[in-house]
Amino acid sequence: MAKDSFLVGLIGSGIGPSLSPALHEREADRQGLRYVYRLIDIDVLGRPPQAVGDLVRAARDLGFDGLNITHPCKQLVIEHLDALAPQAEALGAVNTVVFENGRAVGHNTDVTGFAASFARGLPDASLERVVQVGAGGAGAAVAHATLNLGAGVVTVVDAVVERAVSLVGQLNRHFGQGRAAAGSLDELAGLVASADGVVHATPTGMAAHPGVPFPAGLLRGGLWVAEVVYRPLETELVRAARGCGCAVLDGGGMAVFQAADAFRLFTGCEPDASRMLGDIGELAGAAESSVQ
Amino acid sequence: MAKDSFLVGLIGSGIGPSLSPALHEREADRQGLRYVYRLIDIDVLGRPPQAVGDLVRAARDLGFDGLNITHPCKQLVIEHLDALAPQAEALGAVNTVVFENGRAVGHNTDVTGFAASFARGLPDASLERVVQVGAGGAGAAVAHATLNLGAGVVTVVDAVVERAVSLVGQLNRHFGQGRAAAGSLDELAGLVASADGVVHATPTGMAAHPGVPFPAGLLRGGLWVAEVVYRPLETELVRAARGCGCAVLDGGGMAVFQAADAFRLFTGCEPDASRMLGDIGELAGAAESSVQ
Repeated sequence: MAKDSFLVGLIGSGIGPSLSPALHEREADRQGLRYVYRLIDIDVLGRPPQAVGDLVRAARDLGFDGLNITHPCKQLVIEHLDALAPQAEALGAVNTVVFENGRAVGHNTDVTGFAASFARGLPDASLERVVQVGAGGAGAAVAHATLNLGAGVVTVVDAVVERAVSLVGQLNRHFGQGRAAAGSLDELAGLVASADGVVHATPTGMAAHPGVPFPAGLLRGGLWVAEVVYRPLETELVRAARGCGCAVLDGGGMAVFQAADAFRLFTGCEPDASRMLGDIGELAGAAESSVQ
Repeated sequence: MAKDSFLVGLIGSGIGPSLSPALHEREADRQGLRYVYRLIDIDVLGRPPQAVGDLVRAARDLGFDGLNITHPCKQLVIEHLDALAPQAEALGAVNTVVFENGRAVGHNTDVTGFAASFARGLPDASLERVVQVGAGGAGAAVAHATLNLGAGVVTVVDAVVERAVSLVGQLNRHFGQGRAAAGSLDELAGLVASADGVVHATPTGMAAHPGVPFPAGLLRGGLWVAEVVYRPLETELVRAARGCGCAVLDGGGMAVFQAADAFRLFTGCEPDASRMLGDIGELAGAAESSVQ
């Protein structure tokens, strides 16, 4: 029996501007599904990040079908779940919880979403040597995705070197020694010079963090650049990379595919990611996500 | 700014067969509103009736716009609310909670719903002398409604005489001495013989409680009969009363108008009760609610 309605939400901090409600609800409308997506902002509620367990249990009891989880609750939620999907377990972070017969199962569609976006937007990119800038939560997810896609070596650089070292340790334990390496910002020029492509996974380029994450002079034709920031879709890095003739993947694809993967988990229905890419172009107030 | 989606639910015990989700969602669909109505059954959750306070707070935190409340939580919920509408305060029972800027406000649309149904279905009925059978929760609500409509005297009869006496005391305190009187089942024949109409507010006539609540021989042409039971719409009492030429109000109208009044409170949009009466005729698996 097909479910006739879906109730989902997003738990996190400072999520008021999230595009997730619109991304999910627009796709549901096109599929004729009754679908409500609610924002559950712990700042608005005055609750600490540790309240995520109570909120997840409450959502299950009140008839939610699932939840997205974001900063700062992606790790904290794990101890409150009944099971984890492999990518979520490998990463140690959950961005999607599905309630199945009273059980709460954790998934990570940041990992699957970045991989799907990359496969669609940069299908011919060489992955032999990848440099990644940023070793935070988003960085961990996209590094897992890049290695899942078959990257030879991912060298992770972060302003906080210890953070890069810690992520690289986790990556090598999971994917095998030598698949990941840590670097410092001082080494970035040399790393990029010999890399096939660069993944950017810090907040730099968002409206609140303008600028480029590294000197645009490091860019060159033949390099591919994958951006995680999607508001705006055309970050300074994306603009500079396009100017240099790089193959560029903006952040809209990851935003869409993580939502599309969550939508599929929540509903069992196949989302149309192409239509959702059109939505995010409109919603993010910029040109449609595209590869140039 | 019009809200673009609505999330509501029903808290109670054994509510699986409730028609409320369908009644609300069908009307919302016709109005083009995104609307999800969830059943929150304390039996399914294994929670005691006293958990209603926690469930109401959780619903507020998770983005519900409002809740319906039913047995056995209509009184228990009151201490967890921030304010009460006048009918709810007078009755001491809440069947609808609306979240307004973080405040939980209690209403009672059983009272307003029965009044609206009566006014629509029996507009010419004399209310000088009304006999009501049943002094439970539904009985309290409909007695308030009948007296709000201007009934001269409502005589309440219940198999448990103390329950009738208790309700009558409350009614006289609120509406003024002499507006209500208590009677015993032994007196029912004489009371009905001199009454303008009879309100039935016990479970008798429901599928699980077949039969008539009092001997059909007491019915006569010229008497009006208002039924609270709506599953089935044509109870044995309704059928017998129609057979005697009584003006009859079945229970579908109250079920629809309590839902319509809650819908208006939740959404700020005016429901079309005529269309909803059509729905309940279909949903209750019987002829459309009507007056004959």
